[in-house]
Amino acid sequence: MTTKARQVHLVSRPDGMPNHDHFEIVEVDLPAPGAGQVLVKNLYMSVDPYMRGRMRAQGVYAEPYQLNQPMYGGAVGQVVVSNAEGLAAGDIVLNGAAWQDHFVADAATVNKFTPFDPERLSLYLGTLGMPGMTAYVGLLRFGEPKPGETVFVSAASGAVGANVCQIAKNLGCRVVGSVGSDDKAQWLVDECGVDEVINYKTCGDLTEALAKAAPDGIDVYFENVGGEHLQAALNVMNHFGRIAACGMIATYNNAEPAPGPNNLMLIVGKKVRINGFIVFDHNDMREKFLQDMEAWVSEGKIKTRETVVEGLDNAVDAFLALFSGDNFGKMIVKL
Amino acid sequence: MTTKARQVHLVSRPDGMPNHDHFEIVEVDLPAPGAGQVLVKNLYMSVDPYMRGRMRAQGVYAEPYQLNQPMYGGAVGQVVVSNAEGLAAGDIVLNGAAWQDHFVADAATVNKFTPFDPERLSLYLGTLGMPGMTAYVGLLRFGEPKPGETVFVSAASGAVGANVCQIAKNLGCRVVGSVGSDDKAQWLVDECGVDEVINYKTCGDLTEALAKAAPDGIDVYFENVGGEHLQAALNVMNHFGRIAACGMIATYNNAEPAPGPNNLMLIVGKKVRINGFIVFDHNDMREKFLQDMEAWVSEGKIKTRETVVEGLDNAVDAFLALFSGDNFGKMIVKL
Repeated sequence: MTTKARQVHLVSRPDGMPNHDHFEIVEVDLPAPGAGQVLVKNLYMSVDPYMRGRMRAQGVYAEPYQLNQPMYGGAVGQVVVSNAEGLAAGDIVLNGAAWQDHFVADAATVNKFTPFDPERLSLYLGTLGMPGMTAYVGLLRFGEPKPGETVFVSAASGAVGANVCQIAKNLGCRVVGSVGSDDKAQWLVDECGVDEVINYKTCGDLTEALAKAAPDGIDVYFENVGGEHLQAALNVMNHFGRIAACGMIATYNNAEPAPGPNNLMLIVGKKVRINGFIVFDHNDMREKFLQDMEAWVSEGKIKTRETVVEGLDNAVDAFLALFSGDNFGKMIVKL
Repeated sequence: MTTKARQVHLVSRPDGMPNHDHFEIVEVDLPAPGAGQVLVKNLYMSVDPYMRGRMRAQGVYAEPYQLNQPMYGGAVGQVVVSNAEGLAAGDIVLNGAAWQDHFVADAATVNKFTPFDPERLSLYLGTLGMPGMTAYVGLLRFGEPKPGETVFVSAASGAVGANVCQIAKNLGCRVVGSVGSDDKAQWLVDECGVDEVINYKTCGDLTEALAKAAPDGIDVYFENVGGEHLQAALNVMNHFGRIAACGMIATYNNAEPAPGPNNLMLIVGKKVRINGFIVFDHNDMREKFLQDMEAWVSEGKIKTRETVVEGLDNAVDAFLALFSGDNFGKMIVKL
């Protein structure tokens, strides 16, 4: 029996903002799984801002996506056929083969896991997955917040940001977030216990708004946005402040590079440390991350919010919505 | 007997590039030194780029200079009269009372020291003083170069930069410098053993020149300049590169802030660490610094170069020359 798979291919490289013309859904016949291989049906896949970087011809983060090949990324699937020891049909596996509904791969490329709650598998693509671990690693290893310090988080209701906010609260910090809608601000304050939230679209001068929201200055800035947010954060930063930079979404779709902050000299005067990082380099923290985060989620100390889009046909729309700010929380595609 | 002192005062705050109108030489009568005080005659004073920051109304580095008061900074002087235990006439002292030929102060504000070579007192304002220690602290504590790695130094023949270059060579690194004249480039190659030197004024595209001079990429960037230099350094930086930022002289005289590098997102993709720092926070390294640097200087493993200007009347010109690039090595005023 041949299994058919539907895959989303990148068919041309976007210059600025991507659109549907850059992608195509392709149906292929999968080979039967060989020895040591599995056939997996994906249940959920993730769309994440970092994928935009892989659409460029030259990658800094990682290898670029190949044209006319399936893209890839984090997914949760279920084993359908296994020819591999240690894996059986029905097993739930984390895998890096998003953007397709079925795939055949070596067993070593998928990771069987026992979900903390079988009804909430998609959490392993968000709070309990790569974005949550990005928040955990960035805040703890590079932000090094002390209880009572002020942590500023941009894109604060996003897949990474919302976790940063709540981890920082759990650590006893004062947390200031920035978001692009009043709904998101309300959720962070009411549900997540964030102390102050700025709507950067309506607040006027961002430095002034931030200085008002953080009257004692900022000790840690978790950078998801870049541009004007970084400039404002530097203006309000305390001496010996730390910046953990996991992304700068404001810049991802620029066809031409935009100028950076005009106040970088403050890094010297304020003795600021900036660490760019990518979560994949920090697997030594994975066990502790899962232990802490599963506990916090089950105790209600970390709230999660997802936007779930149904079907591979809508995966590109889900991806594009990441850059319009229309999504709320972690964007998930249910396959 | 009354001692007269000549002092340079800041009389108005420069907006862009300072000029003589912002300064005035004032003659004052000094009080006789009281109990626990000393009268000091300054022999050498330092002019440094950081002093430009203190001319602003609002300081980030440190307190701004007061208008119509003597400016201050590093100087080497000799005690003329002492009413303090542990200090005697003739003692050589480091002090923070530059920009004046004589001064009276509490003994605790000056530091008696035994010069490594009594003929080379001015070294304690350069290679063996604040700029040398800035080089040492920044490179070792924040650059963390390993033997065989490539270190890029901007303003490489300057008071800080020339020391960074030579310390890095002594540690077994490959060193690439950037300067603004062929004379300076020649000196760095011939005398200091720097591997490659770029004249940024004539090299064309700085990123291309840097990529050619550092074919294995840059592991450590010692940032003295900012702007285009930082942008080029990020472009050529290796993964897990470190940037030690002690100043950004390109930006000091801007009346309006200039945009920053357009490629800061590379900090994330390349997992770069940037540390702004000010040497005064790192006095724990002082003893080791003096021990290493006095040894290297006496063994000829660190060459020093000074531009010596004579007389307090020429101190403002000496300071202004720091921003034109006309000076070569450490700028010293002999009083």
